[in-house]
Amino acid sequence: MFGKLKEYCGVFGIYGHPEAANLTYLGLYGLQHRGQESAGIVSSDGQSLFSEVGMGLVAEVFNEKTLSRLPGYIAIGHNRYSTYGTSLIKNAQPIMVDYAQGSLALAHNGNLVNARMLRDELEEDGAIFRSGTDSEVILHLIARSERRFLPDKVVEALDRLKGAYSLVLMDKQEMVGVRDPYGFRPLIVGKLRDAFVLASESCVLDLIEAEYVREVQPGEIVVINEQGISSYRPFPPIVPKHCIFEFIYFARPDSLLFGKTVNSVRMELGKQLAREIPVEADLVIPVPDSGMFAAMGYAEESDIPFKMGLIRSHYVGRTFIEPTRSIRHFGVKLKLNAVRDIIEGKRVVVVDDSIVRGVTSRKLVQLLHGGGAKEVHMRLSSPPIKYSCFYGIDTPTREELIASSKSLDEIREYLTADSLQYLSLEGLLGAVAPDQEHYCTACFTGNYPVEEVWHDVDQLKLFEREL
Amino acid sequence: MFGKLKEYCGVFGIYGHPEAANLTYLGLYGLQHRGQESAGIVSSDGQSLFSEVGMGLVAEVFNEKTLSRLPGYIAIGHNRYSTYGTSLIKNAQPIMVDYAQGSLALAHNGNLVNARMLRDELEEDGAIFRSGTDSEVILHLIARSERRFLPDKVVEALDRLKGAYSLVLMDKQEMVGVRDPYGFRPLIVGKLRDAFVLASESCVLDLIEAEYVREVQPGEIVVINEQGISSYRPFPPIVPKHCIFEFIYFARPDSLLFGKTVNSVRMELGKQLAREIPVEADLVIPVPDSGMFAAMGYAEESDIPFKMGLIRSHYVGRTFIEPTRSIRHFGVKLKLNAVRDIIEGKRVVVVDDSIVRGVTSRKLVQLLHGGGAKEVHMRLSSPPIKYSCFYGIDTPTREELIASSKSLDEIREYLTADSLQYLSLEGLLGAVAPDQEHYCTACFTGNYPVEEVWHDVDQLKLFEREL
Amino acid sequence: MFGKLKEYCGVFGIYGHPEAANLTYLGLYGLQHRGQESAGIVSSDGQSLFSEVGMGLVAEVFNEKTLSRLPGYIAIGHNRYSTYGTSLIKNAQPIMVDYAQGSLALAHNGNLVNARMLRDELEEDGAIFRSGTDSEVILHLIARSERRFLPDKVVEALDRLKGAYSLVLMDKQEMVGVRDPYGFRPLIVGKLRDAFVLASESCVLDLIEAEYVREVQPGEIVVINEQGISSYRPFPPIVPKHCIFEFIYFARPDSLLFGKTVNSVRMELGKQLAREIPVEADLVIPVPDSGMFAAMGYAEESDIPFKMGLIRSHYVGRTFIEPTRSIRHFGVKLKLNAVRDIIEGKRVVVVDDSIVRGVTSRKLVQLLHGGGAKEVHMRLSSPPIKYSCFYGIDTPTREELIASSKSLDEIREYLTADSLQYLSLEGLLGAVAPDQEHYCTACFTGNYPVEEVWHDVDQLKLFEREL
Amino acid sequence: MFGKLKEYCGVFGIYGHPEAANLTYLGLYGLQHRGQESAGIVSSDGQSLFSEVGMGLVAEVFNEKTLSRLPGYIAIGHNRYSTYGTSLIKNAQPIMVDYAQGSLALAHNGNLVNARMLRDELEEDGAIFRSGTDSEVILHLIARSERRFLPDKVVEALDRLKGAYSLVLMDKQEMVGVRDPYGFRPLIVGKLRDAFVLASESCVLDLIEAEYVREVQPGEIVVINEQGISSYRPFPPIVPKHCIFEFIYFARPDSLLFGKTVNSVRMELGKQLAREIPVEADLVIPVPDSGMFAAMGYAEESDIPFKMGLIRSHYVGRTFIEPTRSIRHFGVKLKLNAVRDIIEGKRVVVVDDSIVRGVTSRKLVQLLHGGGAKEVHMRLSSPPIKYSCFYGIDTPTREELIASSKSLDEIREYLTADSLQYLSLEGLLGAVAPDQEHYCTACFTGNYPVEEVWHDVDQLKLFEREL
Repeated sequence: MFGKLKEYCGVFGIYGHPEAANLTYLGLYGLQHRGQESAGIVSSDGQSLFSEVGMGLVAEVFNEKTLSRLPGYIAIGHNRYSTYGTSLIKNAQPIMVDYAQGSLALAHNGNLVNARMLRDELEEDGAIFRSGTDSEVILHLIARSERRFLPDKVVEALDRLKGAYSLVLMDKQEMVGVRDPYGFRPLIVGKLRDAFVLASESCVLDLIEAEYVREVQPGEIVVINEQGISSYRPFPPIVPKHCIFEFIYFARPDSLLFGKTVNSVRMELGKQLAREIPVEADLVIPVPDSGMFAAMGYAEESDIPFKMGLIRSHYVGRTFIEPTRSIRHFGVKLKLNAVRDIIEGKRVVVVDDSIVRGVTSRKLVQLLHGGGAKEVHMRLSSPPIKYSCFYGIDTPTREELIASSKSLDEIREYLTADSLQYLSLEGLLGAVAPDQEHYCTACFTGNYPVEEVWHDVDQLKLFEREL
Repeated sequence: MFGKLKEYCGVFGIYGHPEAANLTYLGLYGLQHRGQESAGIVSSDGQSLFSEVGMGLVAEVFNEKTLSRLPGYIAIGHNRYSTYGTSLIKNAQPIMVDYAQGSLALAHNGNLVNARMLRDELEEDGAIFRSGTDSEVILHLIARSERRFLPDKVVEALDRLKGAYSLVLMDKQEMVGVRDPYGFRPLIVGKLRDAFVLASESCVLDLIEAEYVREVQPGEIVVINEQGISSYRPFPPIVPKHCIFEFIYFARPDSLLFGKTVNSVRMELGKQLAREIPVEADLVIPVPDSGMFAAMGYAEESDIPFKMGLIRSHYVGRTFIEPTRSIRHFGVKLKLNAVRDIIEGKRVVVVDDSIVRGVTSRKLVQLLHGGGAKEVHMRLSSPPIKYSCFYGIDTPTREELIASSKSLDEIREYLTADSLQYLSLEGLLGAVAPDQEHYCTACFTGNYPVEEVWHDVDQLKLFEREL
Repeated sequence: MFGKLKEYCGVFGIYGHPEAANLTYLGLYGLQHRGQESAGIVSSDGQSLFSEVGMGLVAEVFNEKTLSRLPGYIAIGHNRYSTYGTSLIKNAQPIMVDYAQGSLALAHNGNLVNARMLRDELEEDGAIFRSGTDSEVILHLIARSERRFLPDKVVEALDRLKGAYSLVLMDKQEMVGVRDPYGFRPLIVGKLRDAFVLASESCVLDLIEAEYVREVQPGEIVVINEQGISSYRPFPPIVPKHCIFEFIYFARPDSLLFGKTVNSVRMELGKQLAREIPVEADLVIPVPDSGMFAAMGYAEESDIPFKMGLIRSHYVGRTFIEPTRSIRHFGVKLKLNAVRDIIEGKRVVVVDDSIVRGVTSRKLVQLLHGGGAKEVHMRLSSPPIKYSCFYGIDTPTREELIASSKSLDEIREYLTADSLQYLSLEGLLGAVAPDQEHYCTACFTGNYPVEEVWHDVDQLKLFEREL
Repeated sequence: MFGKLKEYCGVFGIYGHPEAANLTYLGLYGLQHRGQESAGIVSSDGQSLFSEVGMGLVAEVFNEKTLSRLPGYIAIGHNRYSTYGTSLIKNAQPIMVDYAQGSLALAHNGNLVNARMLRDELEEDGAIFRSGTDSEVILHLIARSERRFLPDKVVEALDRLKGAYSLVLMDKQEMVGVRDPYGFRPLIVGKLRDAFVLASESCVLDLIEAEYVREVQPGEIVVINEQGISSYRPFPPIVPKHCIFEFIYFARPDSLLFGKTVNSVRMELGKQLAREIPVEADLVIPVPDSGMFAAMGYAEESDIPFKMGLIRSHYVGRTFIEPTRSIRHFGVKLKLNAVRDIIEGKRVVVVDDSIVRGVTSRKLVQLLHGGGAKEVHMRLSSPPIKYSCFYGIDTPTREELIASSKSLDEIREYLTADSLQYLSLEGLLGAVAPDQEHYCTACFTGNYPVEEVWHDVDQLKLFEREL
């Protein structure tokens, strides 16, 4: 899958390193796959906060000059991918504000389902908002808390929040990591000699040569300051609901996530896919890079040869302009090319992670036909996506999800594929066993762990319309 | 005077024109002399507010693309010159926020003397701040008002403010102009066919071919909407205290200000200067462009020939880098050159508007000596500046003002001038007669119209240190 | 006059200074009025040439980084204003090339009238051209010379050139200054301690604190190297033909040019203008800045008061976009504003240097009428421009010159002026006496000093059409 | 292999399409892997040539605005990777010049071994050069030809050239493709309806939906104009010497090259590698993306499982700044990460295409050790590179090639690998059989097909030193 579902964000933080901003810069590099729209870092030297935020990739926003303006031993960073098209600098994070007890900065991955309600309530009470992000709501709640210490203020604020949030916060002298009680989004703790690290994914630890310590637990608040690290568990424990799509698509294959390695789960998804409904074919090919591991699993299990029948170009920029209407499947062609001598005359199983609207998958199938494939068998390492996500993934509305209105056969026909098979929900859950009940599968089943969502969906739209 | 005192801002607004943003762009062009650090426009089409704000000159921030993103029939704009070196995009105006009743945008010229106190109070009450400007305080106060209509909310907010403020505000459907009870900073009303205009100075009216209507009165609030223009006078009348430095230096010579034309006042200042202490000399030369009119008045009154003995370069950018330490008076030389064949062997009266630190004036006198002048007689069309301004002008601290600690003769010696004369306070006030008591002369006398200032000065510093 | 005639270029060179590129940067700053389209510097450390050339103002092209890439003790620079709209980076100067004896760089001010013929001839002989400038022709001729030393090669090349050229050349170890036999364009020699300076105008010497030595004589070649400065006069002496328009408009008033100071000549032009045809009026006002000195001369001679009735804005960028068609005289209004209280009800003499197409002057007269002037008497400190220039000034074709087809009265009527008077040719020449025959007045008289021009004009057009 | 050997260029041309520049833009996109330093397009509408050239990726240089300035039905384009560090805009291609018969533009892939000699000769004869590329030499030779028609001029010029050149040329009305007699670099002909296409690689044909027609033959000149396509074979036929490294590394796997598909040759190289010296291991992993196909071939032949033990990040920009010295193997880590759960405790065969200096390979081996691999067996799908290339690949000097001075065992030790194996020359040639004598293997054997090279190498260095 490429260019379809978009995750909101990657967050990173480090406490206690003389090159805190530089390491955060590296950390954001390693989390670039989680958001390419804006990047930002806030640092502290113990006296003041310093902020650099800009639109674009980490490599575009930061250079020697901007990094040199971020002194200090604490830093947090954020990569963002906007939802709803409001891709404005005012929404970039970390958000930095002044409040009664000094300055505060926040980086947020996730989505609050009661943001509109809280915002209305705060505005009624005289609050003003400068961005369209739900993250600003969190800062208002913290600032309004009458508790004395930051961790207590954070707890009081969290008490109001519903939805998905993995947060990294800082003030002049401490760093705080928070994960919502369901643990929708990942957040891990690492250690680089004496310094503590917080990050969305473990893959960045390798990059900065830090060690993996553990996950921030669902509902846990970790506070890191001069006294070291301390943990708060203010909420009653509930069954976690990790986003299963992190395994299917978002996370980097080299990350350790929710206790499993992403690449091994993906291999297993492919194997299970092959087990569920076998097909006679000559080749298994992945949609690079997202379908790579599942395709390898599929090939291994089915004993059909694995080939690189699609080549991906890695120079496609974000600003590509379409020069001609006469070329078919343009967007796909720029990124992928079918390798004729591999697929010509062959019965091809092509493995991708999922289908959202179906438009790109259709172009892909046609690309393979055009490249000479005799049969194209589309296989997806996830069940059909029938419901929107309200916990931090940018899914289209239900109407736009092809699987919400079309039958399997209608989709197959639309894609022009010779056969089409999705992984079963049971197969998916089996691959993450034994704690399969710890995952949110709302996008497949409509079983939303946080209830208010339907009511709030309309509010969300309202909210956006106004901004 | 060049590169010394810096005014905060220019503000502009227009209601009821189909090209509101374009005309605001022009208006900001005409007010560019009041602030060159950032520029911004917020517009409304009656449904939503649109905002474009950036660092730099109006011509750098705006182009066809940015202007095309500002639809609608209402627009306000702002040019800013920062004080205290915090020249950051987060401080650029207009500030746009969401609050309980929708969106609101504010452009502010002036300075609140109780900003720190109000900010503390608001923060105590849970408010968060995203900029370091006192203008954000005003928006918080408006948002917290429980009154129902915007004008009433504004009145309630103004009630808390002390200091100088000429404001232009807007929401989706109306535009509001406000001037503080002392009327420190100017704000005028104009009319362009059916559209109403608010602007810091009247010179922009010529540019957009609008007519001058009147000043917004000190303490007046004008509200412009579908029903036309209405006026509120919620404060008891007091003796106004217009900034007399607008006449001496800030305003454009072609503006009509506080009921007088700026160029004629400047001519009169020069004449009075010549009357007070005559000098035997061969030439009167202005420091271009700031000393032009006073020098012409001086020449006329003294009957000493007026000559352009200094040539000003208009290509000096803001980013000039000093390439060599071996060249003396570098900064001045780039901007000004003495014309040897005019001044060589001559006794020269050089007229400028004022002296702040004295560093530049000293270089200027030396430039004239270097150009062959036999005698250099420095004349200033204002009294010695001995006190800092707290009402919106970026003066250095008292310690840095040369006239606060040195005697006339010590200053003359420092400047290496053959003689030095300031205009007397009486002479200055005579030139703006008959309503001389309507002006603030605090920078010369230390008589600050708004009392709390001394207390708040320290707070101001504190405030800045923290940001 | 503003925005009408455009000169080609300013040139600068320095030999023997450890900060050669930095001083060239300053020199180009001081010559910015001679060309704002592109800027470039080539330097040498005795081993290699280094080049930095870009589009825009000096302050835009150069910064610490670009200057740091220009080491060495020799440097030459160039500001360019393109003619004919071919404003491309490939035409920016200095041009740097490799040839049989190493590297060579050239900066050229002027225009060759036989460029097309020479280019054809060179191309016939197998030469290839990468720019559309006639300057590249000169480099080809030098490279093709079979003489051994650079000065001899230059002489051989010059022998083929017809037209106007003030050149600064350099190779790894020497700098050469050249002026055509007529001396159309200026070129002066200065000295900064041990270093030699070449520059279009003397005003830059003040800026870099160098001394004025002398002009490079018409037809002279000066070679500056380790042995000091040496002079070659390979051409038989002829009566020089300096561009008289340098006095009228192009040069900076503080420059010493062709043995006279520019500002004093301009004053004298104004005085003579007043003498020729007196007018009854209340005020003399200059068109700032170009008409300043002539207006002061006019006022002095006529005893009519001098006033600043027009205010010029110095923030007008080059990229201004016209936001509305409903505003009259837009371009002029952005740059100039009439000061109503000065001119209202007055009979105004407005002094400018010249009229080209008449469009801007017409707007200006209407601006003054609009500002309330009772009568507007337009006075020009030059005779009517009836003929195009082929020696380095960007004049429009004859058809577009208003004075080539319209009578004095028709022009007056077009301008909507109450009266119109040009300076007489005799008056102009009287002001530069006693060597009045040393000036080119072709733009007024059609007497072109270099004959081939008419033939070549068509070729020039041809040439441009092709590029 | 990543970031080691760099090819010079990709070339593209299209004749007879109304969107010629747009398709060239796409073509350059598809050839981006052949050069990322500069990109350029020249187009013709039959009357004039238009040129846009800039530093950076295709997506950075071109946008709607630049493309709109390239009208016409003929266009050629060029991606460049500089050798020798002279990455300057003046060296970007296509080069466009004027000469006796109009305008001419050239895009060149390859390297002339007698460039210095030809350049000296041309300079002796009066030529001037504006770039440091050998391509400019070709244009001089063409311009100097006294033949009447362009193809004849080209032939006369080619007669002087020695070395590698695949050229695309154009003037206002025709396009010419040329390949040197040895056919070192590829060049193919395609057809898009009525339009003819020339391109370095066939992969771009899929992108623009054109058909593959054939290769331009070694020593062939194809001329495309109104009359269609015509072919010239002016040189006596010789045994071709295609660059075998195009198969090993440069070309895209989906290209058809020298009559074979790149991916199938690479698979075969991997298989042969496995056959030559078997090793006991648990996993075969590729260095992505360059070692992918060879690793798959290796795995298939050896029956050792293929795994993605290294993950590549595709967001690494070219401007990355190294933030900390304390992190080991920095450059490699940003691009690659070892997947611990795949390789931990395993005996790993890692397959890459080649080793140049050995520095990066060493870091890679250490990365695998650090990731927990029990044994690391390095396998290269090419023989040791012992000699520099003079035909268009940017190899370092012999001294820097690790295989030119170190034995197999010394290299293994340096890399810290448990074993090291290169593919044998026989194995390599066997994989491209049956026409193995048609390939240049000079970088492995030192048998340079073009003899003058040794003499010219010194000249080349001389040449570069001067530039």
